[in-house]
This record gives sequence, structure tokens and C-alpha cells, in this order.
Amino acid sequence: MAKKLLPLSKVYGLLEPGPVVMVTTVRKGRPNIMTLSWHMMMEFEPPLVGCVISNRNYTFGILKATKECVINIPTVELAAKVVGCGNTRGERTDKFATFRLTPAAARRVEPPLIDECYANLECRVVDTRMTAKYCLFILEVVQAWIDPSVKRPRTIHHLGRGTFMVAGKIIKLPSKMR
Amino acid sequence: MAKKLLPLSKVYGLLEPGPVVMVTTVRKGRPNIMTLSWHMMMEFEPPLVGCVISNRNYTFGILKATKECVINIPTVELAAKVVGCGNTRGERTDKFATFRLTPAAARRVEPPLIDECYANLECRVVDTRMTAKYCLFILEVVQAWIDPSVKRPRTIHHLGRGTFMVAGKIIKLPSKMR
Repeated sequence: MAKKLLPLSKVYGLLEPGPVVMVTTVRKGRPNIMTLSWHMMMEFEPPLVGCVISNRNYTFGILKATKECVINIPTVELAAKVVGCGNTRGERTDKFATFRLTPAAARRVEPPLIDECYANLECRVVDTRMTAKYCLFILEVVQAWIDPSVKRPRTIHHLGRGTFMVAGKIIKLPSKMR
Repeated sequence: MAKKLLPLSKVYGLLEPGPVVMVTTVRKGRPNIMTLSWHMMMEFEPPLVGCVISNRNYTFGILKATKECVINIPTVELAAKVVGCGNTRGERTDKFATFRLTPAAARRVEPPLIDECYANLECRVVDTRMTAKYCLFILEVVQAWIDPSVKRPRTIHHLGRGTFMVAGKIIKLPSKMR
């Protein structure tokens, strides 16, 4: 996908609606992917994102050690791959190969972007004080990419046990809210 | 709305898809409402929810002092009221009266449920260690209600500046994920 840089001030609009995301990490040259719904915006700019990653996940230890990840936002066309990544273990699966996803170089962090995802957020861990107790990582988005040709991204939103809501129509209301 | 109790183990399926919610609080008998998109699940059961509420919001001080709130989940029929609550200040507006919303008694906390919302989560603040730095509150859901007649809730999901995505179609994929 041909991506352009997205201003960091616009990142919140990608994560506020609650899409399922795919988090990429890398250790010793080996990239991994996990599927995640437990994330939220915490600050507009620089964008801070909170996410909870279970310490039973392979990604937990990598993220704690390397302090870098990419949040990749898929659309419904990738749903089977998203679920596939969620159902497999990174210790024993090369998820890029298994699910035929394409790693692309990030600019400011080591983990790869997933090229097939319409948006990618390069992140650094900035606070781990609540990681032991809640598995909470606080991330700063340091670079953001978006495919400008995707006008109405049909993101997917997890309702539990493999059921997903697909992003529907757009409505606009007069608002002073950012 | 006629609500029934929802098992706490099922709460995550309501918040994971990222709906805009309305948070009710009460102080000195005066209930208030704020609109919120910055929330995430942090634990399945008992359900823990993280949320970031700016210290410029009237709700911040009330929640810090009273340690109780209700997370009310609206559907698209309420969109104008949701935006109205987001655009007004609780210090000087009785939002229940202004937006013709109906307070209903909660069972385990003092703030009211918004009767028109199809789901309501009674919450207690269980951790404020990150409140000063990030305006982060960690809530435990102690009681959950749902209107069983709402089969496909058309929740709304904020994309920024009054633009919302309305929940679309449902897809089901084989998954081992909870």
C-alpha cells in the first residue's frame, strides 16, 4: 500500500472508534504479530495510547524488553488473518509467513509495519509502572502512516468469541468536541 | 427500558468494540453526564475498565471525590443527546433535564443509570495511582444491566470532531479467542 505520513494530531481519530488492531514487535530479528482490542487513547499530542497485553502472550515479554511496537489497523478484508494471528502462538509460528502478511520497514522503530493494514502507528513504550499489576503499557506514537486511498476504512470491532462488528455508515453532528 | 442483569463475565463484549459512552456521576444529590470515548477493558472478571477523563472536565473532580460512576452505552437514536452532553458543561447545565434523559436508580452505586441507554455498567474507582499524571481512572464494574430486546445495538464510534461511525453488520469467524 502507498502510505503517507499522518500528522500525530490526527491519530486519535483512528483509535477512538475501537478497531481491532494488530501489534507487531521484533526480537533478535524475528518479527511477531498479536491481535488486540484492549487499547485506548490517553493524550492527543504527542499521542499516548494505553494498552493491556496479557503476560501470557508472547508479545508481553518482547514489548517489555524492547520497548517498541507498531499498532497496525486492519480492515474487514483482513479479518481471517486477524483471527488467525489471535489464535496462534508467536513462540512457534512465523505469523507473517503463515498468514501471508508483508512486513515493511518502519522509520523510527525496529518492528515492521504490516503493509496490508491501511494505517500504522510506530510506538515506543514510555511508562511501565502499571505493567506488573495490570499488564498496562503506555505507548507514545512517534510516527503515523495512512493509505490516503482508503476513504471509509471498514474496520472490525470485536464483540467476543470471534464475532465482529464491521464499521457501518458515517454520521456527522454539529460538535465543539475534538 | 426493561433491563435484566448481565453476568459480569460478559461485560467485555460491550466495551471492546469501542462505543462512545456516557458517564454519570452524582455529588450532593446533583447528577451529571459526560461523553467519553477514551476507555478500554483491562480485565475480564471482575471486569476492570480503564478510562481517561480530562481534569478540565467537571466529572474529573466528582469521580475523584466520590469514587463511583455508571458507564451508560447509547445507540445511534441518542446521538444528538450524546453530542449535546459532550458540548455542555456540567457546572452550569442540568444535562438530564436539558437533554430529556431519564435517571434510574442503580443498585450498588449512587449515580443514576441513563434509562434510554441499552446497557449500563455500575462502577467503582479501584485505583487512582495514575490519575494525577494521566487522568487515568481504573474502574471495577460491580453490576451490569442490559436491555435484552436490543439484539443488534447500533452503537456509535467517534472518529473526531462530531463525526461518528455507526455499528454496521456482524460477522462471525472461527476463533479460540475469548
